[in-house]
Amino acid sequence: MDIIKRYKIKRYEDNYIDDIEDCIVVEYLFTIYIDNEEFITLICTPTSLRSLVIGFLHSEGIIKSMNDISSIEVYDNDGYVKVNLRDRKLLDEKINQKRAITTGCGKGSIYYKALDEVSENKNNKEKDRYIDYKNIMSLINKFNNKSDIFFKTGGVHSVGISDFNEILFFEEDIGRHNALDKIIGRCLEEKIDVNNKVILTSGRITSEIILKCAKLNINHIVSRSAATDKAIELARKLNLSVIGFARNTKMNIYNE
Amino acid sequence: MDIIKRYKIKRYEDNYIDDIEDCIVVEYLFTIYIDNEEFITLICTPTSLRSLVIGFLHSEGIIKSMNDISSIEVYDNDGYVKVNLRDRKLLDEKINQKRAITTGCGKGSIYYKALDEVSENKNNKEKDRYIDYKNIMSLINKFNNKSDIFFKTGGVHSVGISDFNEILFFEEDIGRHNALDKIIGRCLEEKIDVNNKVILTSGRITSEIILKCAKLNINHIVSRSAATDKAIELARKLNLSVIGFARNTKMNIYNE
Repeated sequence: MDIIKRYKIKRYEDNYIDDIEDCIVVEYLFTIYIDNEEFITLICTPTSLRSLVIGFLHSEGIIKSMNDISSIEVYDNDGYVKVNLRDRKLLDEKINQKRAITTGCGKGSIYYKALDEVSENKNNKEKDRYIDYKNIMSLINKFNNKSDIFFKTGGVHSVGISDFNEILFFEEDIGRHNALDKIIGRCLEEKIDVNNKVILTSGRITSEIILKCAKLNINHIVSRSAATDKAIELARKLNLSVIGFARNTKMNIYNE
Repeated sequence: MDIIKRYKIKRYEDNYIDDIEDCIVVEYLFTIYIDNEEFITLICTPTSLRSLVIGFLHSEGIIKSMNDISSIEVYDNDGYVKVNLRDRKLLDEKINQKRAITTGCGKGSIYYKALDEVSENKNNKEKDRYIDYKNIMSLINKFNNKSDIFFKTGGVHSVGISDFNEILFFEEDIGRHNALDKIIGRCLEEKIDVNNKVILTSGRITSEIILKCAKLNINHIVSRSAATDKAIELARKLNLSVIGFARNTKMNIYNE
């Protein structure tokens, strides 16, 4: 699958126009079938598609772990994936709930009931570590310099997960939600213990991003972009640490 | 309605941590009821909500003009709007079509059949003007310096429409699709002739952005961000001029 294509375009600079070849990010339509029924089409970057599907299903509350999936077959050349569930109970519940279309690049349909579920799990949870901000600064700067596709095309978001030392997984996507779902999917596939891990993201932190992380029990989120009011309030309620605008030597600590 | 809220946060810089007050962008849930049934909840910035709804319904192919709406009542303090349609035919068609969750910040559910409809309208359309790139450069720089909410919070996208001289309307939203829909809504409300107009946007140009503009018969799009491969191919097919990475003295001309 191509992730980047080369196009002949024109570049304008100071009144001159040149013919050049430029790297353009690919937009890929990827349809998820669940139990042989079409569920949704995601618009994404065609990498880590298996992780994307798993993470998406988790973020949407359709699965809680890999055990809830009986099979998953990705047909990447044909733009679809077939998922079979062991139990449709969660799916059927979700279908009957309200849908909210999201602020997110690449993903929609967060089901707001999720908030109640997450709150119940998290309310009494204790923070799993003291944050070393100097270390966070060096991590995010490492992260900010890591995106190949971004440097070539300027058209993707990145998300990584770190154990506060190394960046364990790193994913890119034209949608910031997709990139996070790819990471969530990889954590589920590889049964990563998310305690003492931090999510690093290029994208803005909205309430849906907080919810997705909280569902996986990730307690730390660092972004190089802004956070919204609802994200901050949710993070304070759920006891997640949230840092934004983390670049070079500065960052904003929205919740410790 | 507050668009920005002030929060007490901490700022880290070079190993020092200060208590500061920061401006945070508000995330607002806004539910659209059509003919007394709940249709969808948008996550948006609470400005120009009437324009947002009108633009959204147009972008989704549920209305073609203001004539298709018999009434619209915005209850902004309660987070909802009631729309009544003169004719549910388009809505019922759409509900039965496939949904694609979008790459977009703030909006989903582009119905891909839209592409065929738009193609039919546009295939033989002639370009309405010769592009003066130097003028475009000065317009986008004016546009890039216009966003108050962005300067305060760093958390919004902006979209404007221009007659190649002035920026006629300017809208901001946490979702790049919402910001465009607000502009589309205003054009419909004020019956703006979109010939010889150009859309200016801070957000990436994906195929859905092209489709939304094409549906309104807007032929020129300039962004300060990237375009995807599908956006470029669609623009070339539909004869829209598309410029990306327009900043300071440079821009990429993806389609003339």
